Amino acid sequence: MIELADFLQAQRRIRPYIHYTRLVHSDFLSEMTGGDVWLKLENQQPTGSFKVRGALNKLSQLNDAEQAQGIVTASAGNHALGVAHAAASLGLKQVDIFVPETAPEAKLNKLRRFPINLHLAGQTYEAAHQAAAEFAAQTGALEISAYDDLDVITGQGTVGVEIMTNLPACEQIMVPVGGGGLLAGVATAVSHIKPICHIVGVQPEASPAAQLSFAQGQAIDPYDHAPTIADGLAGGFGEKPFELLRPHPPEIVLVSETDIRRAILALLAEHQLIIEPSGATAVAPLITGAVDVRGKTAVCILTGGNLAMNLLREIVA
Amino acid sequence: MIELADFLQAQRRIRPYIHYTRLVHSDFLSEMTGGDVWLKLENQQPTGSFKVRGALNKLSQLNDAEQAQGIVTASAGNHALGVAHAAASLGLKQVDIFVPETAPEAKLNKLRRFPINLHLAGQTYEAAHQAAAEFAAQTGALEISAYDDLDVITGQGTVGVEIMTNLPACEQIMVPVGGGGLLAGVATAVSHIKPICHIVGVQPEASPAAQLSFAQGQAIDPYDHAPTIADGLAGGFGEKPFELLRPHPPEIVLVSETDIRRAILALLAEHQLIIEPSGATAVAPLITGAVDVRGKTAVCILTGGNLAMNLLREIVA
Repeated sequence: MIELADFLQAQRRIRPYIHYTRLVHSDFLSEMTGGDVWLKLENQQPTGSFKVRGALNKLSQLNDAEQAQGIVTASAGNHALGVAHAAASLGLKQVDIFVPETAPEAKLNKLRRFPINLHLAGQTYEAAHQAAAEFAAQTGALEISAYDDLDVITGQGTVGVEIMTNLPACEQIMVPVGGGGLLAGVATAVSHIKPICHIVGVQPEASPAAQLSFAQGQAIDPYDHAPTIADGLAGGFGEKPFELLRPHPPEIVLVSETDIRRAILALLAEHQLIIEPSGATAVAPLITGAVDVRGKTAVCILTGGNLAMNLLREIVA
Repeated sequence: MIELADFLQAQRRIRPYIHYTRLVHSDFLSEMTGGDVWLKLENQQPTGSFKVRGALNKLSQLNDAEQAQGIVTASAGNHALGVAHAAASLGLKQVDIFVPETAPEAKLNKLRRFPINLHLAGQTYEAAHQAAAEFAAQTGALEISAYDDLDVITGQGTVGVEIMTNLPACEQIMVPVGGGGLLAGVATAVSHIKPICHIVGVQPEASPAAQLSFAQGQAIDPYDHAPTIADGLAGGFGEKPFELLRPHPPEIVLVSETDIRRAILALLAEHQLIIEPSGATAVAPLITGAVDVRGKTAVCILTGGNLAMNLLREIVA
């Protein structure tokens, strides 16, 4: 179990390097659903996603020996950016990052600005992950998991602390789910502050690893997912998130690729927000009606904004 | 002259209703120009533009009789939204707003959510303005100018106070110019705080009323402009902004329609920001090289984010 004090310590630890992001009211979604709907703008974090929170909470606790040995990670993009930003903020020197060759160009361009060793490896997250694991074994570098690590999960959970601080009336939070770091962090943090607040994990139909994990009673990781535009949510559901959530499994809702595109377009047209597919996923079930928030105060976490230009072009066309 | 104390009072007056907007570093523009370039995100204000500042500073000073008599204004969009939001925030009941039929749909949709009387009038800002003036004459409602009013100008100038507070090193500010309210407000506020800071007004070639006004030694308003995608900057340059700026006229730079489109696309691709043409105008001369900020700390004011979907579609295509 991660205690409330752990989340508050993480918050103090990472605060110098991140934004306390805005929570904005969505007139559009409130009118559409009959609820009081708010958006947590994690796309406004440095590097354009919430991932910097977990990375900072993890890296700021490394000892001198670990720092000297170096760190390595694999990511489809946002976790890599979070680690690169955290490492640069904290002055870490030895940083190796493995990214699948299929990662969106917007994310790669941003990554290239950091003082890191960038390795393009394989076509999938799993391939990049394997290359990173081999690198760690060869060099002794510490591998930083994107979600299967308690310090990372605690860092991501600070999003939940901020939401409950800014909007104590919040009764429901929609959280995009991939590996489960954000979901486990937010659900655990919020359970300490307002246990009655309902947490809904939202996952692409193409990669329902969280839903399957709870149905089968064990974490499924890796998971052989179908193609999805929500690249950040594709793949397995982590062991540690699973263990944290197992006593009170959250509701998991699946959304189609079309639903995700509609959510991206709605956020563009109604809020002038550029949100990447993984981030827009939280909004999709409100638009389709799959989740009912009538009469409720609800928050959608918009996890990131690194939308590839070709996808933007497709969606507005 | 507007004194520093006036700006600080305006800041206190409007703060409960607006955001102290973020000033974010642009790695992209800094690398491109060799300067240290920051973006002031006024697109994140309620209603999506800075105009709410001037409207709030004006409306919060009306007496009971003026409030009872009602207010009326004309605008191509953002000033209308600013007035509607300010009136709703302050509880004003009698609000009539005239908008040209050509205003972007995104702005009209937002306007329809406010408790105001919305009138679509004519094809141009000038036509809407004339209809508003007739309405004022008939009903005794107070007409709220978008730029030719000292209280409005003072409200807009709070952007300058925030910039200098957050970034005292700032040496140059790029300000989009239409009627001149923001330019006059920011230039005057900054002249009190750091007179050496260089102010550059940026205007579309299609509507160079500010440049012509300073060249000819008198405010040109109305001005018969050519078509421009920067609808918020089209038209005349106000008498009061002219008088305020006349002792030390700012540098005025013109940008083409193509330059503005490139700026919108760069802000989309590099910063995942949706900025409307008027707002992106401040960035355009850095991209073209028309303004040199090498070695300088510079700020571009991104005045608004209400980009019409059809224009977004065109620009990313």
